[in-house]
Amino acid sequence: MKLQQITLVAVVLALTSSAFAEGKPEDEIRYRQSVMNVNGRAFGPMAQMAQDKAPYNKDVVVKNTAIVEMMIGLPWNSFAAGTEKGAPTKADMKVWSEGAKFKESAEKSQKAVTALATAVKGGDEKAIKAAIGDVGKTCKGCHDDFRLKEFRN
Amino acid sequence: MKLQQITLVAVVLALTSSAFAEGKPEDEIRYRQSVMNVNGRAFGPMAQMAQDKAPYNKDVVVKNTAIVEMMIGLPWNSFAAGTEKGAPTKADMKVWSEGAKFKESAEKSQKAVTALATAVKGGDEKAIKAAIGDVGKTCKGCHDDFRLKEFRN
Repeated sequence: MKLQQITLVAVVLALTSSAFAEGKPEDEIRYRQSVMNVNGRAFGPMAQMAQDKAPYNKDVVVKNTAIVEMMIGLPWNSFAAGTEKGAPTKADMKVWSEGAKFKESAEKSQKAVTALATAVKGGDEKAIKAAIGDVGKTCKGCHDDFRLKEFRN
Repeated sequence: MKLQQITLVAVVLALTSSAFAEGKPEDEIRYRQSVMNVNGRAFGPMAQMAQDKAPYNKDVVVKNTAIVEMMIGLPWNSFAAGTEKGAPTKADMKVWSEGAKFKESAEKSQKAVTALATAVKGGDEKAIKAAIGDVGKTCKGCHDDFRLKEFRN
């Protein structure tokens, strides 16, 4: 089973199960924020390239796509029931009250990242930039719907 | 060039260069903390297994080693000059005043992680547990020398 399949399974399991959080809520909140931070740091430069705001750098794209591909599978378990609060968070309560929609958004991101990884393997710059754009849209879509502008307690 | 070679090169470049931080100090501090958090969450269960405090789970070891292997290359650029302060941090000022020793510690961790990845590919549980233990020692060594017990500003 390839890593991207494992992570997709992990997303589905995490979001369809009603499992409670593994650790303390504050640790889960910190962990999902850490994953998103590492993910954002990897994705940011690629988004710049896709929008022609930075020169295309194949090595960065290969390295950072691998990071994004790994990170995208990691945060979802840490949105389990019981992690709604416990530390400052930007997670909208809709993550829990509209769980099915959140799950769908997370799966869209996962699929877009898988498609990006495939495009990167293909090596075609235009296709890769389009795939980066598609990932960015799924990030933004989920953030628009489920991420608050400011931290809440 | 394989990912582990790339990350080793990245460590060496990051720690031998006198490059200043890419981003704002607070962003660099947050990023290196995020990487360490993701790294710790992946390594923790393996450390438990290596000490026979948790049952050995090959799938977790494979998945988490891949995460650790990726994370170990990421934080070092974010300890560049200019990131000594700017947000609460546990980084001892010795990171900067004893840069050569810090570099050596970071490289030890990198090498131990590379050896763990090799052991995981080999599949021998005893060798894998020993390699996990070796990684843990390098983590602890660097934390003992360069990580404060409490956050400082």
